[in-house]
Amino acid sequence: MPINPGADIEVLTLDRVPPMAQGYVKDLRVRWALEEAGLSYRESFLPGVIGGDKGSAHLESQPFGQVPIYREAGLSLFESGAILLHVGSKDERLLPSDELQRARTTAWMFAALNSVEPFAQSLFLVGHVSENKSWHDDARDAVRPFLQTRLKQLSAALGDREWLEGNFTVGDLLMVDVLRSIAEEALISAHPNLTAYVERGTARPAFRLALAAQLDAFERNERETA
Amino acid sequence: MPINPGADIEVLTLDRVPPMAQGYVKDLRVRWALEEAGLSYRESFLPGVIGGDKGSAHLESQPFGQVPIYREAGLSLFESGAILLHVGSKDERLLPSDELQRARTTAWMFAALNSVEPFAQSLFLVGHVSENKSWHDDARDAVRPFLQTRLKQLSAALGDREWLEGNFTVGDLLMVDVLRSIAEEALISAHPNLTAYVERGTARPAFRLALAAQLDAFERNERETA
Repeated sequence: MPINPGADIEVLTLDRVPPMAQGYVKDLRVRWALEEAGLSYRESFLPGVIGGDKGSAHLESQPFGQVPIYREAGLSLFESGAILLHVGSKDERLLPSDELQRARTTAWMFAALNSVEPFAQSLFLVGHVSENKSWHDDARDAVRPFLQTRLKQLSAALGDREWLEGNFTVGDLLMVDVLRSIAEEALISAHPNLTAYVERGTARPAFRLALAAQLDAFERNERETA
Repeated sequence: MPINPGADIEVLTLDRVPPMAQGYVKDLRVRWALEEAGLSYRESFLPGVIGGDKGSAHLESQPFGQVPIYREAGLSLFESGAILLHVGSKDERLLPSDELQRARTTAWMFAALNSVEPFAQSLFLVGHVSENKSWHDDARDAVRPFLQTRLKQLSAALGDREWLEGNFTVGDLLMVDVLRSIAEEALISAHPNLTAYVERGTARPAFRLALAAQLDAFERNERETA
């Protein structure tokens, strides 16, 4: 079990988030990668709630007041993509050491974070800011097709393969987490191969352990301050 | 001059884009990095226009029908972030070989592409889809503050430093290109240090050469088919 209070690697996340965000906070990606690699880590917590003002200590380590933050022997690292590159460099199952394979893996990491997630995020953001406005449905209907196009393209690229590029890598880890976080389930289920891909990813023991660890931490923190 | 028809490195982009996109197509990032590193490349062109249906040859090399695509000795690579990681690995001025410095550089690469650009893109997308709609201004006004927050945080993180992390790296290259592409100039000029940062980045000879090469290619392609 990689959570170990004496571990060198430290993963910082928020101590509490709203119930709907639990299970989707991005420290999950880092916990998942560490579980895949069998690397122990300890947890630390910064004052939540998401969207609230962040303390200066938080902003010093994470300029955008986000989580996770990763610390290890002189290194303080932010952005889950960068953390996964770093963790991947410790385990070639996650990030191949072969130069060409590694480059292709990073292409899928950036694709998840820069070509798919932003359109999911735009759809979410537009829905969020238009709550109770007359243009709520119009705005979501206008933005949704951009995400749908990306999912259709991703489905075509995946085809009937198990993972995006040979074996499971941090590229798949990020893509699966981006896809599972899309709130409108119908967008994914329109593509049976994407549904199966997300199921394969989230069925991995390392994912299960990472998710349980995140949920457990929120529950524990809540209990301790109740 | 890095453009050389006999070069091993090939950069593929679109043969034509609408005038407003010229100078902002993302092959610029790759041209810029190659100019910084002094690495020769040859250009190839895929049928534009942006937003049009992409041919199957294009989709085979770039699942989302985007550009640039980078090719070199057995490697076909997409996503400008991944390409810049790869080019950076050839020149430690762009991506430090020291493990901790390299990790910090990648944090800024992902920050540019996953924490800043998506909010700029959401603002652009919302404006685009709401053109001539009654909710155009409301939607933009509702989305804009999220980008403003990120720019304020970035400004605070940069402070009075010349570059984000020591010397100029591919992290700065991506961040400067993201910032210069934000259409609402007032969002940047609200932060004099960001204005100066973009000016420093775009004053670099390598940026000037890359921009000229992109504009020249569009002009040449247009003339040849006129």
